[in-house]
Amino acid sequence: MFLLKTGVSHHNFHTLTRLPAQLPSKNFVLDKFHFSKETKSIKQLYETQNTGSRVTCTVNGWIDTKPKRIGKNLTFSQLRDVKGDTVQLVDSGSQLKALNREDVIQVNGTLMKKKEKSVSSAENIFEYEIQVEKISVLNSSNEKPSQLHEFKKDGNYPPEYRFLQLRHHKYQEFLRKRYQISCKLRQLLNEEEFLEIETPILFKPTPEGAREFLVPTRTKENSTPSFYSLTQSPQQYKQLLMASGVFKYFQVARCFRDEDLRADRQPEFTQIDMEMSFSNGEDVMALLERLVPTTWDQFSVNSSLLTLNSFGKLISIADNGGKINRMPYRTAMSVYGIDKPDLRAPNLKILDLSEFNAKGRLDKGFPVFEVLILKNAFKDIDDFKKNWSFLGDSNNYTFRAPVIQPINDEDLKQNWFEKFLGIATFENPKMISNYLKLQVGDIVCGSTREPSTAIYENPTPLGTLRKLVLQSSLGKELYMETKHDVASWVVDFPLFSPVTAPVKPEMQYPVYEHDKLVSTHHPFTMVQLQDYEKLNSNPSQCRGQHYDLVINGVELGGGSTRVHDPILQDYIFENILKIENAEELFGHLLRAFEMGTPPHAGFAIGFDRMCAMLSGTESIRDVIAFPKSITGSDLVVKSPSKVNEELLKPYNISYLKR
Amino acid sequence: MFLLKTGVSHHNFHTLTRLPAQLPSKNFVLDKFHFSKETKSIKQLYETQNTGSRVTCTVNGWIDTKPKRIGKNLTFSQLRDVKGDTVQLVDSGSQLKALNREDVIQVNGTLMKKKEKSVSSAENIFEYEIQVEKISVLNSSNEKPSQLHEFKKDGNYPPEYRFLQLRHHKYQEFLRKRYQISCKLRQLLNEEEFLEIETPILFKPTPEGAREFLVPTRTKENSTPSFYSLTQSPQQYKQLLMASGVFKYFQVARCFRDEDLRADRQPEFTQIDMEMSFSNGEDVMALLERLVPTTWDQFSVNSSLLTLNSFGKLISIADNGGKINRMPYRTAMSVYGIDKPDLRAPNLKILDLSEFNAKGRLDKGFPVFEVLILKNAFKDIDDFKKNWSFLGDSNNYTFRAPVIQPINDEDLKQNWFEKFLGIATFENPKMISNYLKLQVGDIVCGSTREPSTAIYENPTPLGTLRKLVLQSSLGKELYMETKHDVASWVVDFPLFSPVTAPVKPEMQYPVYEHDKLVSTHHPFTMVQLQDYEKLNSNPSQCRGQHYDLVINGVELGGGSTRVHDPILQDYIFENILKIENAEELFGHLLRAFEMGTPPHAGFAIGFDRMCAMLSGTESIRDVIAFPKSITGSDLVVKSPSKVNEELLKPYNISYLKR
Repeated sequence: MFLLKTGVSHHNFHTLTRLPAQLPSKNFVLDKFHFSKETKSIKQLYETQNTGSRVTCTVNGWIDTKPKRIGKNLTFSQLRDVKGDTVQLVDSGSQLKALNREDVIQVNGTLMKKKEKSVSSAENIFEYEIQVEKISVLNSSNEKPSQLHEFKKDGNYPPEYRFLQLRHHKYQEFLRKRYQISCKLRQLLNEEEFLEIETPILFKPTPEGAREFLVPTRTKENSTPSFYSLTQSPQQYKQLLMASGVFKYFQVARCFRDEDLRADRQPEFTQIDMEMSFSNGEDVMALLERLVPTTWDQFSVNSSLLTLNSFGKLISIADNGGKINRMPYRTAMSVYGIDKPDLRAPNLKILDLSEFNAKGRLDKGFPVFEVLILKNAFKDIDDFKKNWSFLGDSNNYTFRAPVIQPINDEDLKQNWFEKFLGIATFENPKMISNYLKLQVGDIVCGSTREPSTAIYENPTPLGTLRKLVLQSSLGKELYMETKHDVASWVVDFPLFSPVTAPVKPEMQYPVYEHDKLVSTHHPFTMVQLQDYEKLNSNPSQCRGQHYDLVINGVELGGGSTRVHDPILQDYIFENILKIENAEELFGHLLRAFEMGTPPHAGFAIGFDRMCAMLSGTESIRDVIAFPKSITGSDLVVKSPSKVNEELLKPYNISYLKR
Repeated sequence: MFLLKTGVSHHNFHTLTRLPAQLPSKNFVLDKFHFSKETKSIKQLYETQNTGSRVTCTVNGWIDTKPKRIGKNLTFSQLRDVKGDTVQLVDSGSQLKALNREDVIQVNGTLMKKKEKSVSSAENIFEYEIQVEKISVLNSSNEKPSQLHEFKKDGNYPPEYRFLQLRHHKYQEFLRKRYQISCKLRQLLNEEEFLEIETPILFKPTPEGAREFLVPTRTKENSTPSFYSLTQSPQQYKQLLMASGVFKYFQVARCFRDEDLRADRQPEFTQIDMEMSFSNGEDVMALLERLVPTTWDQFSVNSSLLTLNSFGKLISIADNGGKINRMPYRTAMSVYGIDKPDLRAPNLKILDLSEFNAKGRLDKGFPVFEVLILKNAFKDIDDFKKNWSFLGDSNNYTFRAPVIQPINDEDLKQNWFEKFLGIATFENPKMISNYLKLQVGDIVCGSTREPSTAIYENPTPLGTLRKLVLQSSLGKELYMETKHDVASWVVDFPLFSPVTAPVKPEMQYPVYEHDKLVSTHHPFTMVQLQDYEKLNSNPSQCRGQHYDLVINGVELGGGSTRVHDPILQDYIFENILKIENAEELFGHLLRAFEMGTPPHAGFAIGFDRMCAMLSGTESIRDVIAFPKSITGSDLVVKSPSKVNEELLKPYNISYLKR
């Protein structure tokens, strides 16, 4: 029975004392609902105003700047309309001066030419102002927006005021662009004869895949509770659609993952999900090569999309015959140390020095010694310490940090390796130095990795280091060769990976359980046909028909040719992945495959990431209207929240009593 | 480690014995992935075939009819392609005869003219067949589809075989039409300058509104668990978008309700959600009057949409100046006994006989005695019993069943009311009979209801009866005046309704707790301005600025002008609805309203219902790819399911031990 505002006047501000709720006076509320419909946007007004004559007008919007009294009877302010455009208000009466920033008003007035600027001899630019006749306050604002605006000039409001932040032009543009990108993709997919089909979000829990949200369902008393899960992606449903005779499917699909959150992860996110029957990965990649560059051309703040040509040079995709470079997983891992390399610095490459290192002190499972050289990276050792100390900071690495050696004198140029404490002795140091063309001012970064036939540590220490370099402003400046975005396919992934033991702080290397394989992507990915027989003899050496589309070191999306043979799929479930209850978990797919499911392949684009990239922002939170925080909270509405334990009864669950 | 199929031959069918999983032979699997890309659809083939010449071709598809051996070396079958079109296959070799219905194949062959039919003197129709050269089996089918097809000629497969049912032309058309309707609505909304904005599905639980799904979140050990809820609609988020300066918002939004399911309810469903700032209900209704008739014109199987004109006659909306009739809630309730009347029978009206009944034995709270007369409904009493006995069946009614009196002789025509056992004595029976113009063959159905100022029982007994009549095939035939769909707005709803006590079998009337009010729709609906002061004096008599769009007795959607004043909204929460923790539940909205939220109004279309109506099907399950059953199960994937109790630990919940 308490209120946060004290009464009917629209200038009583937010206070901490709550007063008894009271019905506002009739006239006060009615005024908020009386507004004329003959309104125009500021742009429309300007368009009708080419003549420069005086025109009466009605405009809706917000007070965008604090009204400023200029003279006794003269107040200026800015009005911001529903499109985010602004116009100056001039009031020679007393209405405007009483208003607050972010008050919602309807103005009746006269639009007139304010002044005329001669920009060039040929062109005149008119500026307009509205001379206020009447202002109707349709809702008032307390002082909070004004206070926040003073303190947060950058528009980065505390997340609980997201609705104020979204009023800013920049965020309105993010929302608008996201919508326009979705329209474009829908249009292109429509032209390609895709149908959008909605699939269920309430799905079946996968007892193994722990990272899904569970949804309890109402159950009879004393019976074991049943749960839905929220779909992590429509993968199985879209394969069932292929079994249902759908030719080409897409969906702008909401997906859910109960993961540890990072800057580019959200518990709910959107993907553009696609699947095509009577198709394989080649068809899907060709489709994406039609969709993605077109979308980039139209929307990217960084202009058209580049790729690498067959000589490893940056080239526009159009000039590369419309094709996006295909990089095998092994190349990505050995040259860039990660399966999603940032190719805006195509020549920032890792070099394998193993051949110089016959008898090292290297770990058996990680026999490759490799270096990444940051050419011409610093002037003197202070400069090095200031800019590059993060390279050796072990907090930046999951396992061992690389060894870092700045080459700061001529002697080191020849004998740098001796500084690599604990690292192997090389046979002919001078030869290596010459091979590396080391100069004073270079930084040598060295580490170890697994053999090229089986690189599972992803990223490798040097892969992480390279990423850090390219995220630093100096690294960007020194090594990025383009302002454009750069795309590549990554292909030839291992179909299966060994289970990795949980990471402990003292571990220098990942530990694998080589007899327990999991799918690198998901168990529905088809093996490469030339590796088929290795499914039996050596499954860990099988490559999958999977393809990732990587742009600027970000996985824009991924897909694969799927298994559609029921026996092969069951063999993978049972003999390779050792899933004991495959029938219970995936019986629906096996049944569908037994009843005439055509060959099919598909893809999913991470739509939030795509929008963030095209909008030139690092964070997907910028392009989501109401994002969740790093702890999974929506700080506007304050979700998640506690519920009364009584509410859990119909589900036959309770708080855990330990 | 067991399989449901026995080996590599594609004609070993589904058995119940599972055998050890075995890797299929390389060639067997590889054949399933080798298909030419030079395929055409059957329509494309026909289009290139106007000349009637022989053309070699490659087509993908399914064996649509069991191959039939005609002669020693001649087999016929039908191929169904990805568009659902069929062509005859003729094989003079031995490939076709070995195939099974629903096998997936690629055919190489020669398309040629089969015969020429002279339909009229002016027109020749060619029919084609493909003479088979080579068939590649891309996946085989077991005998299940064939068996089901034999038993289920109507295509109504058991729900676990939804993927087979969806292959039928009818269901492919349902999916296609749903997509096309969504495209049309997106196009229209785009033209109206709406932006689609995705809002969160993971929301905050409302402790009161029990009918929402809860989603537990991972919590630290020993801390109270927190929960998301799944949004029942984006209502609060879209209002926050209005606070965020968005002009016109829409979303094709997935919504979730943990309700008792009925034929037209699903736990997850889709709505076309809309909200406009600086707008009121009039603007929203005008928008819907642009969107809905246009969509009907393009997609309805029942042709254009009608409404009632000011004389209560059926008329096309175009001929009514583009306007849809507005019916006050009281009229709907008193004339049709329900707030969503089926107006395809506009003259099947309930008549209030209270004025003839000064001193009745009627319950105090339900003083209105009313009748619905089914004119000319039966020939003789056997005919009555056969067709109309459901009218008096108390199982069809939540509370009291109406009294039913067939007028089967001349005497009854004058004295029918005496048969109305327990019902009041009328003052001048003959006058009433004349007034009602009763004839032999009519049925009089009578019941009681609340006074017109406060009808909360919805539907009334006669409202239910009228609905049953119009759902029966004879009722349709006798009383429906059009094959078109008929739309009306229903407006002037009570803003609040009393809490209704739980229904018990012996109750003849609903029981209200008149001192406890709940929102008839939701607490964000604005009161009608002329009723404003009753918020204080007599809130139960306030009408809301809510509007439902009703078509054929189905609520296609609803919306309202919203409250945007924080004090008024808080007054409604606290003083009228007596919500004790309004600040905790709705603080985000109150905060937003305090910081310059413009006036706004919106609407939501039930998209599944809309698609079902436009497709001419009664069940929304037909237009949802993978619907849930009446118990909320997806019988294809078998969700929901049990999970190991261990999995609940991270959420700090467990099974309820009673």
